[in-house]
Amino acid sequence: MRGSVGMLTDRSFKGTKRRQDDRHEPEFDESFRQQFEELLKWRRDVRSFRSEPVDARLVEHLISLASLAPSVGYSQPWRFVLVESDKCRESVRTNFEHCNREALKLYSGEKAQLYTSLKLAGLRDAPVQLAVFLSRSTDHGSGLGRSTMPETLEYSAVLAVHSLWLAARAHGLGLGWVSILDAMGVNRGLSVPSNWKLIAYLCIGYPKEDNSSPELLRCGWEATLPVGQLVLKR
Amino acid sequence: MRGSVGMLTDRSFKGTKRRQDDRHEPEFDESFRQQFEELLKWRRDVRSFRSEPVDARLVEHLISLASLAPSVGYSQPWRFVLVESDKCRESVRTNFEHCNREALKLYSGEKAQLYTSLKLAGLRDAPVQLAVFLSRSTDHGSGLGRSTMPETLEYSAVLAVHSLWLAARAHGLGLGWVSILDAMGVNRGLSVPSNWKLIAYLCIGYPKEDNSSPELLRCGWEATLPVGQLVLKR
Repeated sequence: MRGSVGMLTDRSFKGTKRRQDDRHEPEFDESFRQQFEELLKWRRDVRSFRSEPVDARLVEHLISLASLAPSVGYSQPWRFVLVESDKCRESVRTNFEHCNREALKLYSGEKAQLYTSLKLAGLRDAPVQLAVFLSRSTDHGSGLGRSTMPETLEYSAVLAVHSLWLAARAHGLGLGWVSILDAMGVNRGLSVPSNWKLIAYLCIGYPKEDNSSPELLRCGWEATLPVGQLVLKR
Repeated sequence: MRGSVGMLTDRSFKGTKRRQDDRHEPEFDESFRQQFEELLKWRRDVRSFRSEPVDARLVEHLISLASLAPSVGYSQPWRFVLVESDKCRESVRTNFEHCNREALKLYSGEKAQLYTSLKLAGLRDAPVQLAVFLSRSTDHGSGLGRSTMPETLEYSAVLAVHSLWLAARAHGLGLGWVSILDAMGVNRGLSVPSNWKLIAYLCIGYPKEDNSSPELLRCGWEATLPVGQLVLKR
């Protein structure tokens, strides 16, 4: 693959030692589970970043952890593009600004006012920008498990994003998923194959603040649904 | 919502105490990160379950953790259906068996032989079966962030599945995602609204064995892609 970069091969970062023998399953205890629940609770979609850079080896490590995600038929269809050049970043920012102006037109009154007040991207501040694509044409996995629900190939790449998101937060990093983008415009701006599908454009960096509740809840855009209302028994 | 069930409201299970004050961000240390990486590594797609039942409160707790997942515009579009009746389980099993026979026709030679040898569902053994749907028609979130990439609504439900998967593994549970299903047939079999989209049908229970590598790798169906080949710089 043209332009691929060297990666850590041992999936270690900063001298992380394997605590467990690979042959013996780890035992997760109550203390770990509590911390993991804190991680789920304090993971946020971050839009404001400090200027502090992120160690490139940490970013590579996060990508290697993302690649441990489940994938249908073990297809591993995720592809990662580290967006570093000013030209590429500018193309994504212009893309976002256009789409955001169009999206604003869908709202009126108070909702429109609130919309304009929201910071919906961190594209100027984020020291790391990572586009995650799906390789639609991959024959890895030989199609297993996706004849009836082919969208599970896309879902596999989404699972990789979530693994990366949680791992980033465990390292004190914030991540913001920008979806107000014309996907094909991103492909063109980044010169990636047209049969790759943009799954997520991620802004990553050390966050200006941490929160245990979503910004869209705090600012009054949307309320939390009671979990009990989301469950049926059959 | 007809048939909704009472849920734990405090998101606690088995006396789990909040270690952190909600106002102060948790500090994740190296020891936690190592264990979290073990969790990513030892999470598996499980197809063989022990008969031991799973505490219903634990299942409810896992659903409440899944509901902490990110969602576009804070839309929280995930809906969960606990499939408990013999009739509903039988309809899903019949659905799978039909689709699996059809999928087998796509393979020939060695791949067909290997396919028939794979256990692709745990629908007979799994003590817990949970269908995760997307409520397509939800206006929660007021469409924020999904005018250009509406598929992010689906992706939100996928993120909830992954949160649940990891949390289940941290509790020693295995989870298997069955995708060889006719989705609309599942809707009919479970009597859920036709505008709900099936995202995942999950089999959950205590696994017969733990592994740090995917079964499809171990059995020779597919190889691991080197992470370095999956990354471009732009």
